[in-house]
Amino acid sequence: MQRYFVEDDQWTADAVILKGEQAHHIFRVMRMSPGDVIICINGQGKASYCRITQAEPDRIKCQVEEGLSSDTELPIHITVAQGDLKADKYEWIVQKSTEMGAGSITGFPADHSVVKWDVKKSEKKQARFQKIAQESAEQSERLKIPTIERKTSLEEVLKEAHPYDHKWILSERSARKDHHHAIDDALRQLQHSDRILLVFGPEGGFSTREHETAIDLGCTPVSLGARILRAETAPVATLALLVYQVELKR
Amino acid sequence: MQRYFVEDDQWTADAVILKGEQAHHIFRVMRMSPGDVIICINGQGKASYCRITQAEPDRIKCQVEEGLSSDTELPIHITVAQGDLKADKYEWIVQKSTEMGAGSITGFPADHSVVKWDVKKSEKKQARFQKIAQESAEQSERLKIPTIERKTSLEEVLKEAHPYDHKWILSERSARKDHHHAIDDALRQLQHSDRILLVFGPEGGFSTREHETAIDLGCTPVSLGARILRAETAPVATLALLVYQVELKR
Repeated sequence: MQRYFVEDDQWTADAVILKGEQAHHIFRVMRMSPGDVIICINGQGKASYCRITQAEPDRIKCQVEEGLSSDTELPIHITVAQGDLKADKYEWIVQKSTEMGAGSITGFPADHSVVKWDVKKSEKKQARFQKIAQESAEQSERLKIPTIERKTSLEEVLKEAHPYDHKWILSERSARKDHHHAIDDALRQLQHSDRILLVFGPEGGFSTREHETAIDLGCTPVSLGARILRAETAPVATLALLVYQVELKR
Repeated sequence: MQRYFVEDDQWTADAVILKGEQAHHIFRVMRMSPGDVIICINGQGKASYCRITQAEPDRIKCQVEEGLSSDTELPIHITVAQGDLKADKYEWIVQKSTEMGAGSITGFPADHSVVKWDVKKSEKKQARFQKIAQESAEQSERLKIPTIERKTSLEEVLKEAHPYDHKWILSERSARKDHHHAIDDALRQLQHSDRILLVFGPEGGFSTREHETAIDLGCTPVSLGARILRAETAPVATLALLVYQVELKR
């Protein structure tokens, strides 16, 4: 069933109004009419079945019916911090991290980032990433849209990280040194409702300086095995292990 | 260090000859000359440091020096069977499955596949997928190139599957039914050097018929959690869990 994230000011106790692009999508793309049912999700992640009562091209009114009982959110909060990559790969990471349950995605310029972040285009780019996250959250049937953030350096990512219970740096160095069990030790320390920060490097990996800074600032270096993964592969694989630990394991 | 997979007939006891595209890459792209060292890997997955002794644009001769001790291959053999997807997504799955350690990748037409496999272009397409697998194996520092195969139906994939110790079907249905622990039970049954077949559906998922056929033919339905993943996301996430089970877990 089609899902829409609807801002809090569009809800009353028993009705919800959808406007703009969402109304267009319901009316023109899905060709729905009064009587059809959609799922609307509010800003707190509460999802309800909503029956359309009035349909116009730019305004859809629905009656709120029963709530959905299924919870598709992970019991932990995961932040993916990704050193700047080429735009298509970064967009891909936003989409995939959302599917895999991340709570927020933060970009930062890494020492080896080839792509330079254009401050003038910053607002437009962040809005585009936020839209990708929203579409991916709807498609993967999530109840929350990850927040898209931006920091000016790895240091800023890590220094603002004091509310995190765990900080991991994904490290090619660890992969080459056979330190493969570190991630298992780290996974086993996760507790219900913990907050975890994952730090991933750009195409060229982290510099020695960044690697040392991360460890000084409390990151645990972990690897995903003996093979060297491309930058865009590591976030999905790491998130899969977190999902396994908190949702799939008996 | 640069890696090349070299056919068995190009090796003698203490020398190896690289030709064609590989010689071009060493001579023109990497601009190497006598004295430089590369890694060559033979058809059995044995890797050796090789010092260049003669360099010409279309022929590089090397002296075989010591062998590499690191093993980047998984102790299990994984086949990824993927219902036909759009070409860019299929290529992506070949690249990512190779990075994550798959042993072979098999395409087949699924009931909901939108893309139709063009038999006339089959040989050319398979060669392209094989090349992507080779490049990805070199980049991820593997010792073996996954084989690229093709079957005519899901039934053919499953019926030829008798040498497999485990067969899993990744199922959206299981994800929606909260059967999330099945994958944990299945992972815990893996033994060293087992052979496992993973079956993934196309963009629209498997048909009811395919789902039932797979289960009749011995597949265990497993899910990757409560969120609905896009077709191209599921193989990477599943392979991450297999890597965890056989390589990362203490």
